[in-house]
Amino acid sequence: MKLKLILSILFVATCFVALGQEKSPEKGLIKISIMYPYSEGKTFNMEYYETKHMPMVASFLGANLVKYTIEKGLSSGIPNQPLPYLAIGTFYVKSLSEYQAAVAPQRDAFRADFKNYTDVTPVILVSEVVK
Amino acid sequence: MKLKLILSILFVATCFVALGQEKSPEKGLIKISIMYPYSEGKTFNMEYYETKHMPMVASFLGANLVKYTIEKGLSSGIPNQPLPYLAIGTFYVKSLSEYQAAVAPQRDAFRADFKNYTDVTPVILVSEVVK
Repeated sequence: MKLKLILSILFVATCFVALGQEKSPEKGLIKISIMYPYSEGKTFNMEYYETKHMPMVASFLGANLVKYTIEKGLSSGIPNQPLPYLAIGTFYVKSLSEYQAAVAPQRDAFRADFKNYTDVTPVILVSEVVK
Repeated sequence: MKLKLILSILFVATCFVALGQEKSPEKGLIKISIMYPYSEGKTFNMEYYETKHMPMVASFLGANLVKYTIEKGLSSGIPNQPLPYLAIGTFYVKSLSEYQAAVAPQRDAFRADFKNYTDVTPVILVSEVVK
């Protein structure tokens, strides 16, 4: 009887973990999206960005960082329009002010690393996950 | 002994589900991001977008749709720069060609619904989740 109870609890826990994570765990988080616009002749080294730059920035964000993502631009979703962005890197954080406090002293180091992977000046969007 | 084994399996399963979902379940997926640029005087009704427009579009995407997200633009991440986007809606799908086939016959209906929540013409980015 006691073991059946433990089994049931573990089973229910598995379901909760599975369901809980499917239901937008990001809602309410702040996203900082660093967006690299496409234009003819510009370059972007995705390998360096993924293996060096993003982990380096992430290492300064501590427990405030929930996750970060990287995406590679493929095309415009509107026919005959140019690709809007070559790449986007996004940090999901709990607190914008904590993020700002963490990156402010490192800003020059981050910018100095730009030239190692791109000649594009990024656009940065701060947004809130609604859903 | 047998019950201990079952307990162990369930425990390991719980851990796998928990860890598996933390490790970027989106890697390899295609994102279609509908981005509404900010400019002075333009409007965007987030409530209509969240409760009517996005669920309507999502309803045509079937099992190809893994999830969709909505974000509200707050500010530029660069001081003294204007907000880049008022809002972004994103569909995460397994197949771009399936997405295109599903939305093509509905495009006029989707566009006709735009005026119910915004006077902004969106930019659409198709990208691949790298990490």
